[in-house]
Amino acid sequence: MKKNVLIIGAGGVAQVVAHKCAQNNDVLGDIHIASRTKAKCDEIIASVHEKSAMKQDGVIAAHQLDALNLAAVVALIGETGAQIVINVGSPFVNMTVLDACIETGAAYIDTAIHEEPDKICETPPWYGNYEWKKRDLCAEKGVTAILGAGFDPGVVNAFARFAADQMDEVRSIDIVDINAGSHGKYFATNFDPEINFREFTGTVYSWQSGAWQENAMFEVGREWDLPVVGKQMAYMSGHDEVHSLSANYPKADVRFWMGFGEHYINVFTVLKNLGLLSEQPVKTAEGQVVVPLKVVKAVLPDPASLAPNYTGKTCIGDLVKGTKDGQEVELFVYNVADHAEAYKEVGSQGISYTAGVPPVAAAMLIATGEWDAKTMKNVEEMDPKPFFTLLDRIGLPTRVRDKDGDRAWDA
Amino acid sequence: MKKNVLIIGAGGVAQVVAHKCAQNNDVLGDIHIASRTKAKCDEIIASVHEKSAMKQDGVIAAHQLDALNLAAVVALIGETGAQIVINVGSPFVNMTVLDACIETGAAYIDTAIHEEPDKICETPPWYGNYEWKKRDLCAEKGVTAILGAGFDPGVVNAFARFAADQMDEVRSIDIVDINAGSHGKYFATNFDPEINFREFTGTVYSWQSGAWQENAMFEVGREWDLPVVGKQMAYMSGHDEVHSLSANYPKADVRFWMGFGEHYINVFTVLKNLGLLSEQPVKTAEGQVVVPLKVVKAVLPDPASLAPNYTGKTCIGDLVKGTKDGQEVELFVYNVADHAEAYKEVGSQGISYTAGVPPVAAAMLIATGEWDAKTMKNVEEMDPKPFFTLLDRIGLPTRVRDKDGDRAWDA
Repeated sequence: MKKNVLIIGAGGVAQVVAHKCAQNNDVLGDIHIASRTKAKCDEIIASVHEKSAMKQDGVIAAHQLDALNLAAVVALIGETGAQIVINVGSPFVNMTVLDACIETGAAYIDTAIHEEPDKICETPPWYGNYEWKKRDLCAEKGVTAILGAGFDPGVVNAFARFAADQMDEVRSIDIVDINAGSHGKYFATNFDPEINFREFTGTVYSWQSGAWQENAMFEVGREWDLPVVGKQMAYMSGHDEVHSLSANYPKADVRFWMGFGEHYINVFTVLKNLGLLSEQPVKTAEGQVVVPLKVVKAVLPDPASLAPNYTGKTCIGDLVKGTKDGQEVELFVYNVADHAEAYKEVGSQGISYTAGVPPVAAAMLIATGEWDAKTMKNVEEMDPKPFFTLLDRIGLPTRVRDKDGDRAWDA
Repeated sequence: MKKNVLIIGAGGVAQVVAHKCAQNNDVLGDIHIASRTKAKCDEIIASVHEKSAMKQDGVIAAHQLDALNLAAVVALIGETGAQIVINVGSPFVNMTVLDACIETGAAYIDTAIHEEPDKICETPPWYGNYEWKKRDLCAEKGVTAILGAGFDPGVVNAFARFAADQMDEVRSIDIVDINAGSHGKYFATNFDPEINFREFTGTVYSWQSGAWQENAMFEVGREWDLPVVGKQMAYMSGHDEVHSLSANYPKADVRFWMGFGEHYINVFTVLKNLGLLSEQPVKTAEGQVVVPLKVVKAVLPDPASLAPNYTGKTCIGDLVKGTKDGQEVELFVYNVADHAEAYKEVGSQGISYTAGVPPVAAAMLIATGEWDAKTMKNVEEMDPKPFFTLLDRIGLPTRVRDKDGDRAWDA
């Protein structure tokens, strides 16, 4: 049994993580939140108290932390007695936080792949560039590290595992992420614009016919007809989970599809073609050196500010095709979330909600021992059933749709 | 007779001005070019020599100058013995340069209205905010100042005057500026992006039914069918010449129409709506204070770099309607210029060419005494005929189109 949670980061996802930890502090123990800007942690804690989210009396405390400073992270883990670290900070800090967990023995959970500020879209499989290099060390030291335990990556990896377990052979895994919500702004990204755009400016890697295939963003689009959100265009995109599912299901084609409206694509295309999404600095006529992407981020709405007026639903799921007893089978495993309901419960929009609830479920499964792997794992390497059971209870129910209809995963 | 010219500025328009002054240095005398960056003046002089543009042996010299420093401008006028100053620098320096001319007695010519960096689109008439406040002083001191003597404003003001002189009453003056050229880039502006975008982010002022009317950019569009360039969409835009022509022809409607393709409008709209065209600073997440418009300028192609591959033509003209002897009459007075021909002659694209040739014609008319007004004048207040005669000879022929056909203005 591990307990006491240290949350790293204080953005929209961290807010959801904090609320969900508070709602389950009987299992998780003390809650600590650390960020470069302590005031943001204080705001999250205030919102937790405002919603009376703490299930039982307990500790919830804010800390200032430079998460790129290994010694500081190690010290804070020691000081707080945290046995579980949920890293929902910038993807630039993953490796420092993971190293701190390895050094202290705390369990590590994150929701997105490590990135270096000056590199976009590295060689596949992405996990091989940073995280998996620490896998043997985790095993040797018995440190639990659950990688990519948000929604996508995360729950969708469990969806793939759940479907694959019902088949003799898996032919393809298509992950589809549709946000059919509306924030009412001219344009906004649903999470940090810098990270959002970085996702779409590099090569689109997919795993097909046993090899990495390269495409450009918006090169391959397909209309999907999904539960609740209906017909939606989605485009093949580069995404973390493709890089672990392809290793675990090498015979299956693994693709990720992100839904985009024409307006998003137009704005993105204009900004990209002008060079405004570049992470490389430019010099103004006045001699000021500026990274254009950081200026774009500065003028866009703060994703957290979208929450109060966000309406509509998301549908994220996996269409898994394969064979069972010599027959072709296919299963769509999915979740539908609602922006307004998320805001009502935890003060965040649906994208933050779907990303923030799963790592808390993972933390609870580590706390209870069910997912305390004592080594490094991607989510599809863990038993999905206790994960789904917990997610059903804490806000993200899993459903399936196949030739027999649409139902709860365990119906 | 005035002589010796000081050119202020070293951008694309200054390059054309320098070449044209060199080609007419028998009339104009010594040529001096001054800019914040002297190296840019040196480059222009090198290109003048490369084209063997000097009509006769004479002085052409480069100077470093901070044109916002009144004493420095006064000193340079004295040092060079310039009796004519052609100001084609940033519109932020107009008033300093004008003051220096008033102080020294040199004639002043500019091609665009004065602007303050932190203000966009001030109260109409724009000339009343800065330039016209010095009109009495110019008259008192006998200083010649020809305002807005580029193409638009400038030649189009003379077009209006020329047409109006043939009518008993002028009903409307519609100035239409179409660039049907192609630079082959994804997106570029034809002159300084900062100034270009500033033109279109403010209120669109037009003079209609004897009053200022306000519209938003791209709110009012109309298809025009013009000589050579054919059918083209143009949108009512704010522009300098509306603010003087409305004073000189208060009974006429005065409107300015700028041609834009759908692609330009889309890029402009995205940038504007995101706040990236703002002249007001924003702060990045890292705390850097940046003016978004200056970053957009930094990522866009340098307008001068467009010249070598620019093809196609511009058509800029005035459709003037009125009455003559009780009959409705209308006249379209215009010029067509060619990007590639401009590049061949002076190493600049057509937009710089049309803007840079007219102030040299004005300087020559001041040198010969024909336009040496000894007071402040907008171009429509001067006799257009010697101007057209000179422009015909030095590269920008004037044509007219009416019910009787299409012909040279003096045919």
